[in-house]
Amino acid sequence: MSLVVQKYGGSSVAEAASVKRVARRIAQYRRAGHEVVVVVSAMGDTTDDLIDLAERVTPTPPARELDMLLTAGERISMALLAMAISDLGLEARSFTGSQAGVITDSAHGRARIIDVTPGRIRTALDDGAIAIVAGFQGVSQTTKDITTLGRGGSDTTAVALAAALDADVCEIYTDVDGVFTADPRIVPAAQHIPVITPEEMLEMAASGAKILHARCVEYARRYSVPLHVRSSFSTNTGTIVAEVDRVGFPISFNEMYLPSKSNQEPAMDTEASLEAPLISGVAHDRSQAKITVAGVPDIPGKAAGVFQAVAKAEANIDMIVQNVAVGQTTRTDISFTLPAADLAATMAALEAARGEVGYSELFADNKIGKLSLVGAGMRSHPGVSAKLFSALSEAGVNIEMISTSEIRVSVVTRADVLDDAVRAVHHAFDLDSTEGEAIVYGGTGR
Amino acid sequence: MSLVVQKYGGSSVAEAASVKRVARRIAQYRRAGHEVVVVVSAMGDTTDDLIDLAERVTPTPPARELDMLLTAGERISMALLAMAISDLGLEARSFTGSQAGVITDSAHGRARIIDVTPGRIRTALDDGAIAIVAGFQGVSQTTKDITTLGRGGSDTTAVALAAALDADVCEIYTDVDGVFTADPRIVPAAQHIPVITPEEMLEMAASGAKILHARCVEYARRYSVPLHVRSSFSTNTGTIVAEVDRVGFPISFNEMYLPSKSNQEPAMDTEASLEAPLISGVAHDRSQAKITVAGVPDIPGKAAGVFQAVAKAEANIDMIVQNVAVGQTTRTDISFTLPAADLAATMAALEAARGEVGYSELFADNKIGKLSLVGAGMRSHPGVSAKLFSALSEAGVNIEMISTSEIRVSVVTRADVLDDAVRAVHHAFDLDSTEGEAIVYGGTGR
Repeated sequence: MSLVVQKYGGSSVAEAASVKRVARRIAQYRRAGHEVVVVVSAMGDTTDDLIDLAERVTPTPPARELDMLLTAGERISMALLAMAISDLGLEARSFTGSQAGVITDSAHGRARIIDVTPGRIRTALDDGAIAIVAGFQGVSQTTKDITTLGRGGSDTTAVALAAALDADVCEIYTDVDGVFTADPRIVPAAQHIPVITPEEMLEMAASGAKILHARCVEYARRYSVPLHVRSSFSTNTGTIVAEVDRVGFPISFNEMYLPSKSNQEPAMDTEASLEAPLISGVAHDRSQAKITVAGVPDIPGKAAGVFQAVAKAEANIDMIVQNVAVGQTTRTDISFTLPAADLAATMAALEAARGEVGYSELFADNKIGKLSLVGAGMRSHPGVSAKLFSALSEAGVNIEMISTSEIRVSVVTRADVLDDAVRAVHHAFDLDSTEGEAIVYGGTGR
Repeated sequence: MSLVVQKYGGSSVAEAASVKRVARRIAQYRRAGHEVVVVVSAMGDTTDDLIDLAERVTPTPPARELDMLLTAGERISMALLAMAISDLGLEARSFTGSQAGVITDSAHGRARIIDVTPGRIRTALDDGAIAIVAGFQGVSQTTKDITTLGRGGSDTTAVALAAALDADVCEIYTDVDGVFTADPRIVPAAQHIPVITPEEMLEMAASGAKILHARCVEYARRYSVPLHVRSSFSTNTGTIVAEVDRVGFPISFNEMYLPSKSNQEPAMDTEASLEAPLISGVAHDRSQAKITVAGVPDIPGKAAGVFQAVAKAEANIDMIVQNVAVGQTTRTDISFTLPAADLAATMAALEAARGEVGYSELFADNKIGKLSLVGAGMRSHPGVSAKLFSALSEAGVNIEMISTSEIRVSVVTRADVLDDAVRAVHHAFDLDSTEGEAIVYGGTGR
């Protein structure tokens, strides 16, 4: 018997029929003898509808009350899911984040989990019941007010509960069969990745792969929670995110929890895994923008002034490049990337700091794309960057910025050549499937 | 400064615009210096919509989960109301029933309040904030599960909080200007009642006057909470439910809480109140049905067998008549009234008990009406029943059953003559307004 934590997103429970479909899957696990904890998001567009309602009342809703409002969404979906499971003859009990012991700080709208005390969940499991928990929400340790966790919150709830309950696996259900070597909508020959390390997954997520939020992967890595990212529309094995041994086999991952395993393809192709792959995949990100601060006086403290202004706008900057203009030693240009959503506020903050910093010009550019090549194997292969640059050059793609980590190389390009760039790099690193059209994207049940 | 508890029903907060209108009314009280606690129901049809959603998932939702689902309704309305107040520049904090300290038993769907511990509400008031509380809901003392209070639950929440906080008044907002001597839709000459005792209001509510649920009036009476039933669509004084002194003036009712009192009609006409009125009003009820069990053996225990069967169906029976047929001493007929909603289940229970009880025939009748005359003054006026019967006789209305309490006389008639009966009795007891068409029903702001 295993303890399985499952997380279903809003699209998996968008209407009564899909709630019942998810309930049947959960019941299958319970009937196989597993203990099951389910984390669920709000149904379909519920959260957006509630935000619309708030906007009709006031343009500036207090954060505490917005959290109170939005948490009604998961309350509805979790109660309906518990009812649907009960309709199948099994006991299910739904719990709010507060009831489930998800303790957070008091930052409404973007609260961080600081403790998980799942006493009531443990009791429900001991009673033989399935526990359904509202994702995305918790309760403030100090004020006892209801909080929401912000982006990636439901995935993070699932991982946090899995860690606190010492679960055997945390299954993240989505509408695709897991993680691919590239987005199959852009690269039809993209291959399914059976196993990936938390470190690589974190780089993929941080580089724009939307399947998992970096925050949840980081949490899973810190507490060694094995993740299984899979489709709620098929029974295929998805992508397992876990530490691997020398031959690429996941360590401390209990496959026994998988139901009716005989009907499934093997979790991974062990033959192909005998050597750790050089590259896990190619991620891309269209959500970034670039700011260039031109003519910054090349005096100590001036560059710091630029980034103090950026920090005031609370933007998360990603890549930074500083150019020293040829023949001009007194001034320099600083370019950096940031989420496009933060562009306006950051530009305003920099405009305000113009006098203090003394730069000459400010340029905003929201037509950029970012391509990232991720793979633990590149630690021992110094030629990766060179191969990447020549592949892009051959495809006629100009590189505007570069940044690297131990297991990642990222480049900024024009947005309109990003798709071509992804396809060229995917091909150059031999990631294309040899099975032609055999790769099915999006599962079979949809 | 007074502490005012206000309760707004679903029709008062049916959409964003009405939420903002209610917020302005609340703000007016706070700005006048009062401490304000607001109890709010779910918006408009939200509760019905959630029940529909549950029915699409399962025909038999577990009561615990149905409560979890339905409580999402008040969560939405209370958060929006807090936002709307905040938009007016005042602080408001919303609280679930559980957070507000509404402690109940574990009877999901019809929980009873067993304690109120409003520590967080008191703190909010001390901080100068307006407290918004979800009506209709609480938390089980033993299981810590979320409960709903069933019919009349939001009114009862308001009264319970008013009692626990020692409020000066509990205002129940509705869509009419308070209680009338009869339903103005049936009796256009019905008069507004400025003051009524809890005892009389309880009899009126129990007799079909829909403006307040008997449960909330009973709670208010037990804890001496003065009620003010009034319209959320006007600023008119409504009906004050409170103990009165010998001249009909309400005792321990602090009128100082009323805002802009100079713009209002006086709370009551003191001259007309110098003598307590004989009759408070005429209530009617179309929701009852009648069952007749004919030919019950006149042997000890057989009548008890009838009511044991009824008790199994959990029906609340109201009036009971047992006839001994002339010239036939071995068998009797038993008739009783009950809510029409319980008719089918009760008939089934009686059918099942036919062999044991040994009655000869069973009749169901859902075409009955009940008329009740209520007034504390009838204690000292023994002629009330006689006058009632002759008024009905003159109007050609046949009386099928009669029951009385100290301050009420009720009769059962055919449903199709109930309106005529109400008008005849209202007229016979001199309750008709002498001001002709001057009585406005339903407030002026609608």
